[in-house]
Amino acid sequence: MTRVDSRRRPNAAQRRHQLCDAAITLLAEDGPRGLSHLKVDRRAGVPDGTTSFYYRTRVALLQGVADHLARYDAEAFAQAFDDVPDGAGDDLLPMLAEQVLLVRDEPHLSRTRARLELTMLAKGDAGIAAGFQQVSESYRALTERLVTAMQNGLTAPLDRSLLDEQVSVVLTYLSGLVFAFANGSTEPMTSRDIQRQIRAVVIGVAAERLSQTS
Amino acid sequence: MTRVDSRRRPNAAQRRHQLCDAAITLLAEDGPRGLSHLKVDRRAGVPDGTTSFYYRTRVALLQGVADHLARYDAEAFAQAFDDVPDGAGDDLLPMLAEQVLLVRDEPHLSRTRARLELTMLAKGDAGIAAGFQQVSESYRALTERLVTAMQNGLTAPLDRSLLDEQVSVVLTYLSGLVFAFANGSTEPMTSRDIQRQIRAVVIGVAAERLSQTS
Repeated sequence: MTRVDSRRRPNAAQRRHQLCDAAITLLAEDGPRGLSHLKVDRRAGVPDGTTSFYYRTRVALLQGVADHLARYDAEAFAQAFDDVPDGAGDDLLPMLAEQVLLVRDEPHLSRTRARLELTMLAKGDAGIAAGFQQVSESYRALTERLVTAMQNGLTAPLDRSLLDEQVSVVLTYLSGLVFAFANGSTEPMTSRDIQRQIRAVVIGVAAERLSQTS
Repeated sequence: MTRVDSRRRPNAAQRRHQLCDAAITLLAEDGPRGLSHLKVDRRAGVPDGTTSFYYRTRVALLQGVADHLARYDAEAFAQAFDDVPDGAGDDLLPMLAEQVLLVRDEPHLSRTRARLELTMLAKGDAGIAAGFQQVSESYRALTERLVTAMQNGLTAPLDRSLLDEQVSVVLTYLSGLVFAFANGSTEPMTSRDIQRQIRAVVIGVAAERLSQTS
């Protein structure tokens, strides 16, 4: 009996996964206004009241979605980058560009739009912001690996404050690009374009410093 | 009689201005979910039904707010940049950096947050998107003036495709910066930092091209 039940009824983790996926679609389509417990029930095709059972309040639901998105990002991240050996900047650059380009297509487009909506909401909610903290730290760490690897041959020894600024400007550039892609930018961009522009930022920040100190 | 009436009762343009300002505050505080015709009435302190009278539908209200924001941007733009003589890149750069820094403070912060919310909504609404079209064209034109002026001494004659890419990457960087500021980024940034990073992008895109062709 118990065995049959456990096969038929999804467990709590599966249910939450299903509800969060539905919530992401609603957020991506209509923004925060498109999201309510009942709308998530209907979209997920579960009995009315299910979402309220798993997420008592709206804040709990939003935090649940933020954590869910963070897990997706962490997975995509691990798949794309964990096998790249340290210092292999030549490999990291095209992989990062590919990750950014994925944003234009589903399911990444909806997830990115939902993440942007939640980031806008997170200004007033520490719990949502915390959900994204780890993801943005992973991105910064990856970008630092990339820039460090690209740095070889430009300056030696490593200049910590230069590296920090290169990483910051690359991240700011990528954030602008992701926002544009998530909002239907029609500017044609290839992986090579993105790679070239990231290299440009890294080279430019270093060159600008040199021109100031010389 | 008519004269007294016209003094006491705001005209339609003033009323719309007042309603749109209230809508901007609501959008900035709670996102699109915080916005309804009745909430705008209450926030503006006008009789219930006033917003519905001036903006029949939600779409009409959102488009009205988008146009209102675009007018604010155009005004700020004209004030900041119209007096700068052509080719004076040295003057334009600090002024552009100041404009970006303003985003961190009111009333610009709320307007920027409202604009980002509407940009996210605009994906499905051509009318809202059209409202912002002119503003983004002004920004691109200004950035092009800036980059052209900075270009002098770097390459001559002017390379059109290089200029286009420099402008695009500067705009992408600025968009990322504005998004961060609008969402409470605590990273300390001064006008000098922003100026240096814009110069870095402009120099970097040119340097990267040279390294490819040489």
